[in-house]
Amino acid sequence: MKNKMITSRDEDFAKWYTDVVRAAELAAYSSVKGCIVIEPNGYAIWEKMQEILDKKFKELGHQNVQLPLLIPESLLKKESELVEGFAPEVAWVTHGGSKELEERLCIRPTSETMFCDYYKDHVSSYRDLPKLYNQWCNVLRWEKETRPFLRSREFLWQEGHTIHSTKEEAEKETNQMMEVYRWFHHDILAIPSITGLKTEKEKFAGAEYTLTNEALMYNGVALQAGTSHYFGQKFSKAYDVKFSNTENNLEYVYQTSWGTTTRMIGGLIMVHSDDYGLVLPPRIAPVQVTIIPIGKSEEVMSLVNKYSILLKEQNISVTCDLTEKSPGFKFAEAEVKGIPVRIEIGERDLKENKVTFVRRDTREKIVQSTDLDVVNYVKELLDTIQNDMYNRALERRENLTFVAHNLSDMENILNTQPGFIHADWCGDEACELKVKEIKGCKSRCILEDEKLIDGKCVVCGKDAKHHVVWGIQY
Amino acid sequence: MKNKMITSRDEDFAKWYTDVVRAAELAAYSSVKGCIVIEPNGYAIWEKMQEILDKKFKELGHQNVQLPLLIPESLLKKESELVEGFAPEVAWVTHGGSKELEERLCIRPTSETMFCDYYKDHVSSYRDLPKLYNQWCNVLRWEKETRPFLRSREFLWQEGHTIHSTKEEAEKETNQMMEVYRWFHHDILAIPSITGLKTEKEKFAGAEYTLTNEALMYNGVALQAGTSHYFGQKFSKAYDVKFSNTENNLEYVYQTSWGTTTRMIGGLIMVHSDDYGLVLPPRIAPVQVTIIPIGKSEEVMSLVNKYSILLKEQNISVTCDLTEKSPGFKFAEAEVKGIPVRIEIGERDLKENKVTFVRRDTREKIVQSTDLDVVNYVKELLDTIQNDMYNRALERRENLTFVAHNLSDMENILNTQPGFIHADWCGDEACELKVKEIKGCKSRCILEDEKLIDGKCVVCGKDAKHHVVWGIQY
Repeated sequence: MKNKMITSRDEDFAKWYTDVVRAAELAAYSSVKGCIVIEPNGYAIWEKMQEILDKKFKELGHQNVQLPLLIPESLLKKESELVEGFAPEVAWVTHGGSKELEERLCIRPTSETMFCDYYKDHVSSYRDLPKLYNQWCNVLRWEKETRPFLRSREFLWQEGHTIHSTKEEAEKETNQMMEVYRWFHHDILAIPSITGLKTEKEKFAGAEYTLTNEALMYNGVALQAGTSHYFGQKFSKAYDVKFSNTENNLEYVYQTSWGTTTRMIGGLIMVHSDDYGLVLPPRIAPVQVTIIPIGKSEEVMSLVNKYSILLKEQNISVTCDLTEKSPGFKFAEAEVKGIPVRIEIGERDLKENKVTFVRRDTREKIVQSTDLDVVNYVKELLDTIQNDMYNRALERRENLTFVAHNLSDMENILNTQPGFIHADWCGDEACELKVKEIKGCKSRCILEDEKLIDGKCVVCGKDAKHHVVWGIQY
Repeated sequence: MKNKMITSRDEDFAKWYTDVVRAAELAAYSSVKGCIVIEPNGYAIWEKMQEILDKKFKELGHQNVQLPLLIPESLLKKESELVEGFAPEVAWVTHGGSKELEERLCIRPTSETMFCDYYKDHVSSYRDLPKLYNQWCNVLRWEKETRPFLRSREFLWQEGHTIHSTKEEAEKETNQMMEVYRWFHHDILAIPSITGLKTEKEKFAGAEYTLTNEALMYNGVALQAGTSHYFGQKFSKAYDVKFSNTENNLEYVYQTSWGTTTRMIGGLIMVHSDDYGLVLPPRIAPVQVTIIPIGKSEEVMSLVNKYSILLKEQNISVTCDLTEKSPGFKFAEAEVKGIPVRIEIGERDLKENKVTFVRRDTREKIVQSTDLDVVNYVKELLDTIQNDMYNRALERRENLTFVAHNLSDMENILNTQPGFIHADWCGDEACELKVKEIKGCKSRCILEDEKLIDGKCVVCGKDAKHHVVWGIQY
């Protein structure tokens, strides 16, 4: 039975999305325009993301720090490209208490400037390098159009910031962290993102170059899912961050930054979920298994407890729904919340030595004998679900991947069914802007290792330099 | 040998404090007045605090959420006492991007208003209650005088916010969370805080009453270390948060909030640390044991590795300092960072089957045979250190606890050696203000379960109502 709270995905994708957000109680609108409340079910997913990424960052030698939320205007202005990129979308603090401030402060839209300000007093020799920092925090960008998780004025993210004594080492970091995001999306979120280089126009303000992970949503719209920037010495020159190198000469540091955000909660919804609510890949699900007793007999409750203890011992996250609600209501609730596996234990079934497992992703009911090795069965089932979800998302992505040889191909695709569109490009920004005229379609990324398709720019027909993936974005 | 970076604690306590903060690399000043950078060593302590408290909060049924950073002025103003209490110290956002806002927004100094705004649309029946929320976030208060960790314009904290269907249940929550803080300070931070009730003057703006944990620093100055507020229906009436109770009548919810902050990192320094740097109780130390090889012989390195593996298996947090620095430099570094136990493994000692353990708290060197059961020995040593640190802090607190029978007693004590001063009070705010004239001394808390000392108010001599602890505060 369809969830009445949720509009059909194929009928109205935008409405379906916000319905899932509300029905799964992931986020709520607030009295502050463009800002959301991340509710317990949403925040638990973010905590799981943090746990997995934080462990990986630390394994790679990064340390967490916390820098100020507010940035003095003069400090922000030192790097001209950054300020041009971000000034239109920052919030300004002008008063502290009852007094007007001598200099206004912006709420951080990103923290490169603050990190540079910190580095400059804490680095003097190559022996102090590299510095590998990460920060979990909130940032604010004064967006005009907002959508829960995907684009919100305030959002939560992690921003990695590192400095190095050589170009090579810094570029290695930029690549390494992009690989971490790729791993995170593919192996944990079951989202088959593609990885490439942003064009000059689309790169981060102030970066020498930006690597990006781009995910494709169910409706064929792209989502920038994680970026890793190489700054070279641009910021270190603007902020005067120098060190004495092994030859005892003063040199500017080489810098990177990289980040991913709560928007990936939106990504999980838009890639995997359905008309029954949220569908979560087991590796990111805060609750992996819910056990629902039907009736309260001693046999039922004893098996509920037994399963719960056995699974918890294996670090599987389990809840038992022992509330007074009806079984049907509990099933629907587990379903809308996206819990990967539901175990239904009922008196009638137990008499026949049966227990029912329900997969959230396929909604398949699997009746098993109570003799089964529940721990291994559930472990395998969770792995199967994770893999199946990835493969379905990959198949969907492949079905929504197109090739365009000229602008009218591009138009046809975008007017029929948007997706990832592969097309060659001459490298000229004018051609990029020409594509953008079609429903705001932008270059997603340059695939540096891919051969050209037919060697001609999809817009001007001149010699192409890059094989580019294009698409409409959130 | 004394650490040259650190002023003697007995010579200049304030300078000693900031020297320890810098020498242990816990925090750095930033270009934003009154805001600090929490550096890796400081942030790691905060992460450990978060881990321990978060686990406890969740065990007690609380869920984490994230509410907006910005609060519309009109929303803040709905509760008059709160706005009076906080308006002088909030930062105001007046511009978003290039446009002036229609209504200015303040950066949250605390989130009662936002939680009420959220509750009102998400609670309708007693079946929806209680709601037990917690939020880990940054807040901002426009303080005039600041000091790293202890008083900073921006700080990190957790703020618990709960609503209940009965007064009894809400008051139970208020008490329970105060008990959690008491446990956290005593059992984890080894800080023997005292617990009591704030006076009307000192309670949280808008609360019916505030419970507080008050810690005493090495120099006899008090630090408010965690508070738990009972709001009754004050906010729920102001923000119209109603539910239908079991009799199907509309009723306002009963509310609590409770919080503790990064200032406790300052508390750890001021209670436990010394002229050699930071001293951390083992249960809050991000690194509990450091192993320092002297020389690089195969025997040395093999024992370093063996100990490291054995201790890690028992979930003891261990680092091995394998850098190129000299052993003496490594010892000093481990000392200044406050690592509870240092193990020195050297070639010469190994020939005699000896290994050296050094306690950070007492700086005692203990030579042991290499035959010892290292895991149990270290476990016991960590417990001993934890207990000894608590007992020393308790003894210090007791030595700095005084009784005053009249105002001149109070003056004498505060002019000689401040501390916790027990004295009776009539309950009149005028008398409280009279005490404040002496070096800004305030009531710390009312000890409700304590008998009166001599039944007369320490100021006016009239009949006393309360046994109060007084003190100068950070």
